[in-house]
Amino acid sequence: MRALVFDKKLFYSRDYPVPARKEREALIKVSSAGICRTDLEIIKGYMDFEGIPGHEFAGVVEDCSDESLLGKRVVGEINISCDVCAYCSADMRNHCPHRTVLGILNKNGAFADYVTLPVVNLHQIPDSVSDEEAVFVEPLAAVFEITGQVSIKEGDKVCVLGDGRIGLLAGQVLSLTGCSLTVIGKHKEKLSMLEKRGIETQLATDTMTRDFDFVIECTGSQSGFETALTIVKPRGTVILKTTVAGRRDVDLNSVVIDEITVLGSRCGPFEPAVEALRGKKVDVLPLVGKTFSLDEGVEAINYASENKAIKVLMKV
Amino acid sequence: MRALVFDKKLFYSRDYPVPARKEREALIKVSSAGICRTDLEIIKGYMDFEGIPGHEFAGVVEDCSDESLLGKRVVGEINISCDVCAYCSADMRNHCPHRTVLGILNKNGAFADYVTLPVVNLHQIPDSVSDEEAVFVEPLAAVFEITGQVSIKEGDKVCVLGDGRIGLLAGQVLSLTGCSLTVIGKHKEKLSMLEKRGIETQLATDTMTRDFDFVIECTGSQSGFETALTIVKPRGTVILKTTVAGRRDVDLNSVVIDEITVLGSRCGPFEPAVEALRGKKVDVLPLVGKTFSLDEGVEAINYASENKAIKVLMKV
Repeated sequence: MRALVFDKKLFYSRDYPVPARKEREALIKVSSAGICRTDLEIIKGYMDFEGIPGHEFAGVVEDCSDESLLGKRVVGEINISCDVCAYCSADMRNHCPHRTVLGILNKNGAFADYVTLPVVNLHQIPDSVSDEEAVFVEPLAAVFEITGQVSIKEGDKVCVLGDGRIGLLAGQVLSLTGCSLTVIGKHKEKLSMLEKRGIETQLATDTMTRDFDFVIECTGSQSGFETALTIVKPRGTVILKTTVAGRRDVDLNSVVIDEITVLGSRCGPFEPAVEALRGKKVDVLPLVGKTFSLDEGVEAINYASENKAIKVLMKV
Repeated sequence: MRALVFDKKLFYSRDYPVPARKEREALIKVSSAGICRTDLEIIKGYMDFEGIPGHEFAGVVEDCSDESLLGKRVVGEINISCDVCAYCSADMRNHCPHRTVLGILNKNGAFADYVTLPVVNLHQIPDSVSDEEAVFVEPLAAVFEITGQVSIKEGDKVCVLGDGRIGLLAGQVLSLTGCSLTVIGKHKEKLSMLEKRGIETQLATDTMTRDFDFVIECTGSQSGFETALTIVKPRGTVILKTTVAGRRDVDLNSVVIDEITVLGSRCGPFEPAVEALRGKKVDVLPLVGKTFSLDEGVEAINYASENKAIKVLMKV
C-alpha cells in the first residue's frame, strides 16, 4: 500500500505492507487524514516514533469480525489499551501504561491506504458529516476533554491562548459553555474566523491583563505556558495542551505564590465531538487551508510545517 | 533596636529604628524567630527583597489599640492585605494584589527586636505551647493549606517528597488524614524522626515507582518538581511547595500526556496549626538543630545555609 513513513527522516513508500488486522480489530481504508502539530513534533523527534504517523482520519471499514460495521464510515480513538490493567478497569483506558497510540507510540498511523484499530475504538460518522469534517473529530474530542476535566460555568472569565488548529476549535467549543470567553492569538486573519461567530478575540500584546479564571494554553509554542501564567488570576487554572519536542525553561514561582492549578489535558471523548459536528455546533471546514493527495504527503507535511495553513488535509 | 538587615548583603545592626505601629496594627516584641528556606532564597536575591527578613516568629504585644491584646503572646499571619479589593472581599486576603508580606515583600520582618502587624493577623498562643513551638505555626499553616486545597482521603497513596523542614512537618500533618503515606527523602537521620512516629519513609533512589495519587513536593530544590512528575500516577496531583531564586528547566510533556494536576500551595490557615500544636498532634521541637541569639544572626543564617540543622531558631 501507499504510506508516508518516518524513520529518522520522512519518506513516501509505494509498497508498504498492508497491516494485518488482529482479532477484535477492523481493517479500515483511510479516506481522509489530517496533519496535527503532534505529527510535526514527531518528525522533529518527539516520542522517538518510527513508522507511519497520522492519527486524525476518517475511513471505511473493509474487514472486521463484526459484520455490522463492514462498509461503514468511521473515525477512531487513538489509544489502544490492554483492557485488563487497573487503569483500563477504572475507565482510564487512555492512560493504560501498556497502550500503543495510533501514529504516535508503537502503532502505525493513518497516513496510508490502510490502518487497523480495535473495534471498540471506532465511532460511526453520521451521514450529515463529511469525511473532511470527520477528520476533526479527534482534535475536537481533545478539546471536549477540557470541559470534562474542569467545571467552566456561565460568567467564568476564560481565555483560549493560541489561534492555531486547537485554539480555533477550543474557542468554538468553549463558547458553547456560556463563559465570558476571549481567544488571544497572534494572527488577525485566524481570529477573524471566530469573530464571525460572535466570539471575542484579542491580539497578543505585552500588556495583557491578569484577568482570567481559566486559561486554555493551545499555543503549540515553548513559551505559551509562561504567557498563560502571566494572565491567569491567583487561584486560577491553566489547562496545558501543548507538548513540545524538548524541555521548557520556565519560572514556576508564580504557580506556588499565586496557587495556580496547572492541569494537563490530552485525548478526549469522541461522542460529544461527533455530536457537535452533526448538530453544526462547530464549523471546522474554514480551518482547512489546503488538501494534498497521499502521494504528495511529504510536501503536505512540509507545507504544514511552514504554517502556511491552519489545517492541512490529505485525501487518501 | 537590634535587627538583621539585608541590603544586597546581610548585616547585623544595633541601631535600626523601632517600627512605628499604624492604626489597627500591634507593636510586637519578638521573642523567638525561625529561619525558613525562603529567607535563604531571599539572601540569594529572591523577590528582590531589601530590609529585615524573617516571617516565622513568636512574640508579645507591647502596644496596640486593642487593650485586650496587651501583654499577650502571639504569632502572626504574614500577608498584610488591603481589605478592600475583590480578593480581600472574596476571602482571598493572602492573594490581595496590594499585599505586603512580612520579611518577604515591602514589609520589614521579624529578625529584630520589634515587628508590627495588623491586629487581624494575630493569633494568640495557648499557654501549653512554648515560644519555640509557636515559631512553627507559620510553616505548619502552610502545610495545612494542602489539606484545605485537595481532598486527601483514607487509603489515597500520598508521597511527601523531601525531608527538610516542610517535608517533616508535611509528613506529620498528612499522617493525620489516614492516607497511605510515604515520606521520601535523602537523609536517613531526618527520616528516622518520622519513623519514630510510625510514618513510613523511603530513601530517594533511581528506582522509585510511579505509584502515588498525590505527591507533595517539598524538596526545596530545582529538580524536585521533575522528580515528583516521575512518581505521580496518571491523573494524579503534584502539590508544588518549592519556590526557588531563578527559573526551572523541566520537561512538561508528562503533565499533558498523563493529565497531571500541578497545584501551587503557599500560606495557610493558622487555626489548625495552633490547634495541632496545642493538642500535641505534631512534634516540632526535634526539628530544632540549634538556637542562636539575634546578635549572632548572620552566623545563624550561614549555619542554616549550610544545611547543618533542619531548623535554626533565633532567640531575640
